[in-house]
Amino acid sequence: MQAKLNVIPFVSVDHMMKLVLEIGVERFVKELATYIEEDFRRWESFDKTPRVASHSTDGVIELMPTSDGETYGFKYVNGHPQNTRFGRQTVTAFGVLADVGSGYPVLLTEMTILTALRTAVMSAVAAKYLAPKGARTMAMIGNGAQSEFQAIAFKEILGIDRLRIYDIDPSATARCKKNLEGLGFNITACASTEQAVEGANIVTTVTADKQYATILTDNMVGPGIHINAIGGDCPGKTELHRDILLRSDIFVEYTPQTRIEGEIQQLDSDHPVVELWQVIAGKAYGRTAEHQITLFDSVGFAIEDFSAMRYVRDRLEETGLFEELDLLADPDEPRDLFGMILRAAKPASANVEGFKVSPFGHNVSSQVSIDQ
Amino acid sequence: MQAKLNVIPFVSVDHMMKLVLEIGVERFVKELATYIEEDFRRWESFDKTPRVASHSTDGVIELMPTSDGETYGFKYVNGHPQNTRFGRQTVTAFGVLADVGSGYPVLLTEMTILTALRTAVMSAVAAKYLAPKGARTMAMIGNGAQSEFQAIAFKEILGIDRLRIYDIDPSATARCKKNLEGLGFNITACASTEQAVEGANIVTTVTADKQYATILTDNMVGPGIHINAIGGDCPGKTELHRDILLRSDIFVEYTPQTRIEGEIQQLDSDHPVVELWQVIAGKAYGRTAEHQITLFDSVGFAIEDFSAMRYVRDRLEETGLFEELDLLADPDEPRDLFGMILRAAKPASANVEGFKVSPFGHNVSSQVSIDQ
Repeated sequence: MQAKLNVIPFVSVDHMMKLVLEIGVERFVKELATYIEEDFRRWESFDKTPRVASHSTDGVIELMPTSDGETYGFKYVNGHPQNTRFGRQTVTAFGVLADVGSGYPVLLTEMTILTALRTAVMSAVAAKYLAPKGARTMAMIGNGAQSEFQAIAFKEILGIDRLRIYDIDPSATARCKKNLEGLGFNITACASTEQAVEGANIVTTVTADKQYATILTDNMVGPGIHINAIGGDCPGKTELHRDILLRSDIFVEYTPQTRIEGEIQQLDSDHPVVELWQVIAGKAYGRTAEHQITLFDSVGFAIEDFSAMRYVRDRLEETGLFEELDLLADPDEPRDLFGMILRAAKPASANVEGFKVSPFGHNVSSQVSIDQ
Repeated sequence: MQAKLNVIPFVSVDHMMKLVLEIGVERFVKELATYIEEDFRRWESFDKTPRVASHSTDGVIELMPTSDGETYGFKYVNGHPQNTRFGRQTVTAFGVLADVGSGYPVLLTEMTILTALRTAVMSAVAAKYLAPKGARTMAMIGNGAQSEFQAIAFKEILGIDRLRIYDIDPSATARCKKNLEGLGFNITACASTEQAVEGANIVTTVTADKQYATILTDNMVGPGIHINAIGGDCPGKTELHRDILLRSDIFVEYTPQTRIEGEIQQLDSDHPVVELWQVIAGKAYGRTAEHQITLFDSVGFAIEDFSAMRYVRDRLEETGLFEELDLLADPDEPRDLFGMILRAAKPASANVEGFKVSPFGHNVSSQVSIDQ
């Protein structure tokens, strides 16, 4: 797929939508789950580093790199809660995979849609190991852009088919319900968080405010529940009351990052947590008792994006849903970068008749004569 | 330029070459110098962090982010010295500018060519403050992809018009000489580093080996010289003998990064150095004496890339040398990312006559009916 050294495959937003539709979102989330589990099982073979965040008044811009020694990947992602007021997405993202051996990028892809999918799949994979057996009902607090993806991933990977949904904005709940109609869910639009969590085996919190919030209070959380906390994902942004954390067994992606960004920023820095990869790799227990409250304190980690990009890359040849991007300078002779520019001047000069132009525009003295 | 929220301007390699040619490389380096000096003068207003490097046996992949509070920028860059053996560039790069307020990218650009230009301009700007007065002769040790750019930047910004060039590979020297013919230089191809440095006011070392090398030994460096050391730019990669450093006044870009990556990794971690921005901002002295040996221990810093991208971005409207990239998901209703995918299915379905297809491919039960 990379005969020409200068081009890399680029998956635009349009191609990503077509890819999801062609593969089918249900197959997409199931297959992506196998990629994520595969990479979580070999967690120790990855370079891991907390993301590099640039915080501002309005939000955050982050770079999330990782590498398995053969392939390097990073994601650019922003989080700007005010964006929706101006018709923009709270979260947008794009990502790059590169060959570690040559350092050459091998994929550039939109990741706004892909992040929504991988976040949902990550939640469902965690719940597969942590939720109570036979769970069919999920409460979903926060019905924004991430909510439908969560629902579909939980349905395909866990068999969740009853949803109790609530958002402070009733129009968000209505949209979520409408989008999920006909996809095999029994959906109850609720008037409050209290109502939504009634009878739920799993509670997903996925709100967007950048502040210490208390979406769930202690009294709302009964025994045996699995909490999937998505929205608390940067310093100062949490969703759960601290008391809930103290009653829960807490599972995280990458501890050093979650201590800073997750719900557990409310706890002492030595509060015990289990990294999810250990559960998936069979090195630690997930849920061990019926009455246990399990909490997946999810902030998103670079390896999940790596898995998602790896999955997309593996689908490109069969689908052809990409374009070629002229991103990398490729001189005929590698060290002749300057000569490549000189040679690019030729066609331009040829267009000007009866006037000898310098390839370098206006500032070159008349002695210039470049012949190659 | 950004009426459509989903697209960002993309400057391909082809467009970058055309941009350099249309502006003229001489005007390009001069104008870029003013952007770099401008940003170095307001150095304190930038977020600064050492680059995030992922090292491997064959090379390094780095992310270099920075922000001035209004605009965020980062560069992806690799360094793989073995690449030229396989017809690839040692260094390739691309970069992104983004709006801090919304987190939305506003520019994606190739940076292999742009990095070559900004590195050369940075060197020349440093020399403007550090080289001996009236310098006209530069020795250039290492005649690879960066060399012609260095020559042109030093000519335009400092008036260097005599070059003494040497490379262990004579074909590199021949290529460099040929590419620079007719651009107003008096060029001497030399048979050794010793010969090249004879009579030079400035010595530029720009070699690519990833190892502790000694391109310059102490006896080669006479009083009053300015050394522009470009090639020592990652841990384990240096070009100068330690004794030279001890005789020089050392100027760096960003101390915490240069301590790890620059020539000064050979020195104690408290060896005095001056940050170049202080000289440019008038807060520290550059060259103060005729016999002083000055050394610009250059490793490249994110703010230089920021300046370069800012310059390119400011040239787009007048030149039109970019294309639009469909990188950012832009649903009609910001929170309706899922609905955007649903709606993208419509045209596809419409093409299939007499057969009701699910927008989600093969796995959806027959009850599916999506109307929007």
